[in-house]
Amino acid sequence: MKPEDLKAVRSFVKEHLGDRHTQWDTFDDKPSEVYERFRETGLANWWLPTELGGRGLSLEDSVEIVNEIAYGDAGVAFTLFISVLGTSIVQLYGSDELKARYLKPMAQGGSFCATLGSEQAAGSELGKTETVVTAEGDELVVTGEKFFSTNTDFADFLVVVARSAEDPEAYHAVLIPRDTPGIEVVKRWDVIGLRASHTYQVSLKGCRVPAANRLDGSGLRLLEIGLNASRILIATTGLGIARRVRDHCMNYAKTKPFRGGLLVESPVFAQRLGQMEMQIDVMKSHLLRAARDYDAIMAAPDAAGRFHRQGTLKSALTAKMFCGQAGWDVASVGSEMFGGLGYTDELPIGKLVRDMRYVSVVEGGDDVLRDLLFGRYVIPVPRRS
Amino acid sequence: MKPEDLKAVRSFVKEHLGDRHTQWDTFDDKPSEVYERFRETGLANWWLPTELGGRGLSLEDSVEIVNEIAYGDAGVAFTLFISVLGTSIVQLYGSDELKARYLKPMAQGGSFCATLGSEQAAGSELGKTETVVTAEGDELVVTGEKFFSTNTDFADFLVVVARSAEDPEAYHAVLIPRDTPGIEVVKRWDVIGLRASHTYQVSLKGCRVPAANRLDGSGLRLLEIGLNASRILIATTGLGIARRVRDHCMNYAKTKPFRGGLLVESPVFAQRLGQMEMQIDVMKSHLLRAARDYDAIMAAPDAAGRFHRQGTLKSALTAKMFCGQAGWDVASVGSEMFGGLGYTDELPIGKLVRDMRYVSVVEGGDDVLRDLLFGRYVIPVPRRS
Amino acid sequence: MKPEDLKAVRSFVKEHLGDRHTQWDTFDDKPSEVYERFRETGLANWWLPTELGGRGLSLEDSVEIVNEIAYGDAGVAFTLFISVLGTSIVQLYGSDELKARYLKPMAQGGSFCATLGSEQAAGSELGKTETVVTAEGDELVVTGEKFFSTNTDFADFLVVVARSAEDPEAYHAVLIPRDTPGIEVVKRWDVIGLRASHTYQVSLKGCRVPAANRLDGSGLRLLEIGLNASRILIATTGLGIARRVRDHCMNYAKTKPFRGGLLVESPVFAQRLGQMEMQIDVMKSHLLRAARDYDAIMAAPDAAGRFHRQGTLKSALTAKMFCGQAGWDVASVGSEMFGGLGYTDELPIGKLVRDMRYVSVVEGGDDVLRDLLFGRYVIPVPRRS
Amino acid sequence: MKPEDLKAVRSFVKEHLGDRHTQWDTFDDKPSEVYERFRETGLANWWLPTELGGRGLSLEDSVEIVNEIAYGDAGVAFTLFISVLGTSIVQLYGSDELKARYLKPMAQGGSFCATLGSEQAAGSELGKTETVVTAEGDELVVTGEKFFSTNTDFADFLVVVARSAEDPEAYHAVLIPRDTPGIEVVKRWDVIGLRASHTYQVSLKGCRVPAANRLDGSGLRLLEIGLNASRILIATTGLGIARRVRDHCMNYAKTKPFRGGLLVESPVFAQRLGQMEMQIDVMKSHLLRAARDYDAIMAAPDAAGRFHRQGTLKSALTAKMFCGQAGWDVASVGSEMFGGLGYTDELPIGKLVRDMRYVSVVEGGDDVLRDLLFGRYVIPVPRRS
Repeated sequence: MKPEDLKAVRSFVKEHLGDRHTQWDTFDDKPSEVYERFRETGLANWWLPTELGGRGLSLEDSVEIVNEIAYGDAGVAFTLFISVLGTSIVQLYGSDELKARYLKPMAQGGSFCATLGSEQAAGSELGKTETVVTAEGDELVVTGEKFFSTNTDFADFLVVVARSAEDPEAYHAVLIPRDTPGIEVVKRWDVIGLRASHTYQVSLKGCRVPAANRLDGSGLRLLEIGLNASRILIATTGLGIARRVRDHCMNYAKTKPFRGGLLVESPVFAQRLGQMEMQIDVMKSHLLRAARDYDAIMAAPDAAGRFHRQGTLKSALTAKMFCGQAGWDVASVGSEMFGGLGYTDELPIGKLVRDMRYVSVVEGGDDVLRDLLFGRYVIPVPRRS
Repeated sequence: MKPEDLKAVRSFVKEHLGDRHTQWDTFDDKPSEVYERFRETGLANWWLPTELGGRGLSLEDSVEIVNEIAYGDAGVAFTLFISVLGTSIVQLYGSDELKARYLKPMAQGGSFCATLGSEQAAGSELGKTETVVTAEGDELVVTGEKFFSTNTDFADFLVVVARSAEDPEAYHAVLIPRDTPGIEVVKRWDVIGLRASHTYQVSLKGCRVPAANRLDGSGLRLLEIGLNASRILIATTGLGIARRVRDHCMNYAKTKPFRGGLLVESPVFAQRLGQMEMQIDVMKSHLLRAARDYDAIMAAPDAAGRFHRQGTLKSALTAKMFCGQAGWDVASVGSEMFGGLGYTDELPIGKLVRDMRYVSVVEGGDDVLRDLLFGRYVIPVPRRS
Repeated sequence: MKPEDLKAVRSFVKEHLGDRHTQWDTFDDKPSEVYERFRETGLANWWLPTELGGRGLSLEDSVEIVNEIAYGDAGVAFTLFISVLGTSIVQLYGSDELKARYLKPMAQGGSFCATLGSEQAAGSELGKTETVVTAEGDELVVTGEKFFSTNTDFADFLVVVARSAEDPEAYHAVLIPRDTPGIEVVKRWDVIGLRASHTYQVSLKGCRVPAANRLDGSGLRLLEIGLNASRILIATTGLGIARRVRDHCMNYAKTKPFRGGLLVESPVFAQRLGQMEMQIDVMKSHLLRAARDYDAIMAAPDAAGRFHRQGTLKSALTAKMFCGQAGWDVASVGSEMFGGLGYTDELPIGKLVRDMRYVSVVEGGDDVLRDLLFGRYVIPVPRRS
Repeated sequence: MKPEDLKAVRSFVKEHLGDRHTQWDTFDDKPSEVYERFRETGLANWWLPTELGGRGLSLEDSVEIVNEIAYGDAGVAFTLFISVLGTSIVQLYGSDELKARYLKPMAQGGSFCATLGSEQAAGSELGKTETVVTAEGDELVVTGEKFFSTNTDFADFLVVVARSAEDPEAYHAVLIPRDTPGIEVVKRWDVIGLRASHTYQVSLKGCRVPAANRLDGSGLRLLEIGLNASRILIATTGLGIARRVRDHCMNYAKTKPFRGGLLVESPVFAQRLGQMEMQIDVMKSHLLRAARDYDAIMAAPDAAGRFHRQGTLKSALTAKMFCGQAGWDVASVGSEMFGGLGYTDELPIGKLVRDMRYVSVVEGGDDVLRDLLFGRYVIPVPRRS
């Protein structure tokens, strides 16, 4: 990443997200035009590879970028990076034609895609997926109900995980253009934080696509692989929010009178902020390492094969767990710093607490991730840290 | 308390608060008519003494009552009990005439009073109070800006803490009828939880009352004494919210499929709920003890004098600290139990987390209370537990 | 309890336990003569009923007593109260003859008894008990290996839980005099704390007693009932240790220079101690309530039947869980207060941390207790707090 | 580092430290011959630069090495690496002659050095140092009492921080050969963990050395710089101990019967171990980053100058804080996994808990480090993470 890029991101954050916490905490029907502004930086979908006309930035770069945007607003950040979940699946397991047809426009136009994994009865247990994909001649027909899916309404295409009608043990991932008949947005979820983002319940009724739209490999495994990047970046929003909490505390404390001086001079305040800074520093170290783990595989000649063998990356799991937990701690401590004023919407701290909560909730709660981590990386002795 | 009373409270909660969590999470301009419904139970301002026409229920009873109401909605509970802060000051340190004129109607009509302590620069440091009370003949004139005050707009009267114009080291507490000219409600605070309650910023401009409206004793000490009951009951709302979180988790887990069974059968879920139940059980033990400590002094012939010597009760401090901390833990764990659905407004958990936050924030954050506890009850060896 | 009794306990603690932390942290083969000294107070086995010649003090009194002794040394306290586990079973479910023969001498002589429940493969899962009791004519023969049992070597008698040879689904509790042939103390455990106490592995080989030595009811249920008192008192040692940690911190801080003053004047220190005091105060409230719950049943005419129906008391579980957790927190924080000196045996803090650890470990770890609490007191809706 | 080196370390750990936890938990007067065995690997003082005959391994390599040794025994690890505190000061700020005379032999012989900073009244506040260094002609005379100093008795030389007799505002660091008359080992501290290490109280009475033995720069600043490497490696022992705790839990759980299966199959156990693994993984990420931060400066042409300007490295502070806290959490949870057996010396967990405690205590407790972190890296906005 060129230094100008990060500078451009910081300018975007300063100019468009800035201190308007209430603005990004509303629940507008349409995605805000802020996404248009971000596209003007030339960095929209920054991770798409150069051979597809993208900026080709690494996940390590992405951590830096998302850290900055989430400092401004985590919901805006989430909207801007979550397409990576679908694009990385297509990039690794899609045909050249699919990539040319669907990823190139995203690189050029800064548009969005969506990934539809979870269902009402298949949240943490994706083996219960009931959406079905049926082969009919040269086509695939997808039918089912998907519970949570971000960006779907205004996405170019959806990557949908479905059970095979032919083999109930098999799962496929199918790319379905957004304008395919049969896609119905049932509702937008009213979420308790990240309110600048758009997550939908979606119904798929006989959505028909060419057989070539099936991505190569088990749909559940592909989803797991796609979650590596998105989990690391969700964890990164935790870092961005935590830094915002810290700076918010510091700014407040610099003018808040306290015992004949200012709050910032209080030894107790120093303890709280020193602890926060430690947590923030460790979050950052770990996120960068997780991103490098990912980038190392992505840069390998046989990235698709290596990811298929590996599935969930250890550091992607631990990054999301750690940043969610440390982030919640930072937000909780932060929310006690402002007296009664911190319990009002005059200050952004209430929103920051709500935003932070999602880090430990979406794409696998900690109980689910601990379980996965134990089975994959503790039971097998050589994979322990 | 007669068993019927608690039963009446439970019926009220079931019928009027029930499961409508979004209703009590809005920000209506006017207090809801739910308060009218509560008055119909005959329990409004249940703590007022029988000699003033009240129900004369103890603080131990109050813990039971508030526990039930807060289970329904903490904001409604707060509105219903917070008058105790002002009435207990008037009851202990007001003249018989003041009590007859102001507390009797509250006992009969179920109306409200408000206490105005904090100011923008005098939150945790009340010694910085700038509101001034000036003696002019037989009257007192009060002028100043008060930052946070619950129920003020629709209260019968305000108890205002002000610095003496004559002696800047002295503080008075003055009863000011709500209809006194010069009281201006600057704004209602948009709070992040407890949204059924009404907290205001208030301006007092030359509010003139008879000199007999001054309550007997130092205003700061009187406020400290009044906070004993309200802190215990604020802590109690933490218990009510925590019980609601627990039951909400249990109800969800009883129907949520999980690994071939139900979530409620999961050993990990059992661990989380077992821990919650422990915390809830300890909260309750401690709240009842704190209330009994209070009641014991209140029942003494020289209650006013004993409270004046004692000031802040130890168990009132520790109850608020503990219930705020344990409650936040319960709410935090609870908020991770529902997967993505728990991050939407479909479920009440998001609101319960926000409601819980106030326990550790209002009427003294934990840093302030720890400090007070240390100075008053750790430094003096015989006062240690 | 008469005030003199508590005074006598305090004198005993001051004179005999005092500040000699290293003395009580050694691993002497024989119980120290300190137990002889305690007997001289006339309070040995203070809980034994008056009709058996005992002092008849309640469990609420016991909390006060154990709190004081554990302040001096938790291992001494444990040795002095743990007989209650066995005596309460005998008192509730033994024949008058058994009580007269075995409890009376303990009341008079201040001697000890032991309870043998756990086995190597039957720690948290007592259903795996392999010790067997066989009826042979008018006698019972007990054979098996018991893993952890305190005081056995110098006890008057043992209460042993064993599976019935006749009905493998049935468990009995049998009183076996210590001098019965076949009792072999395999070894004394070298424990990491509570080193003034004596816990043994014991082998029972064909121990023969009259059939009348079988206590009335299921052995597992009786053990569960006996654990009510002992768990509450184990939890109480956590309170005593925590108070000692606090006072140790305060004493140190009063003379430790810090930034031009003393450590005790540091606002950060005040925060730490204020938090500790809160935890201590809540521990105490909850322990007293748990003890009152126990005393209320014990005072009922049908105490044996009520306990048999109830089994594990809720507040006994929550007291041990809470005091173990809050106590560990106090000890952990305390152990960071003394700089490098706190990492040496010059100060008692290292011992206090080790002593504290046992509260969460013996008589059921927290995972076991959370599970029990969930099954008994969360699943059944009316038993929730 | 060549792979053989790490392999040699692992062999050493396996062969000489292995499972003999009680052996390394004793308090032998003389350093065990295990140090002789380590020297045979050729890796003693592995960090000393190649130009002085050393192995020239980086701090990143050191993290790998210490992680392995501490897995075997943290006290042995501490003894083996703590010389880095003194050697790095001499390497950066000593004359070529001093380096040749004192560091070369350490590289060849695998011997030890010691650093004497803290005093009884100057622990966290080194400005209170009372040891004095006086210039007398071409010599320096050092007199004072040093409180905690590891390895001193058997070290080749000591690096002593002392106040200048000529300028009480100035502090020097002076290299004093161990055989200098006037060095008296007052006592060895009986520490509560790390018992294979040797820490002493030392008295210096008129210790006379050439003036050239003064290292270049402020003694306090030099000490601060030396602490960078040692704090990172102390933090690393926390990682090694935590890994040992995890493996100890896993080994136990693989054979421990639990509810009809093995403990390792319990979902609750999986949660505990999954959480531990996350903490371990994050510890490792952060330690490696901290080490790279250090190595980057050390590799710069002007390392001495850059370190002098920088002083305490941020990541050295945060690594010690984080590993101490996360490590304590791992050890605390681990200590509850083994039932009653975990409270005996049959299992190493008790020792591991005691060993872990030192991470948060030596070379600055967390309160001290939080304060330092706040002042150096939060107050100055650009230095925040």
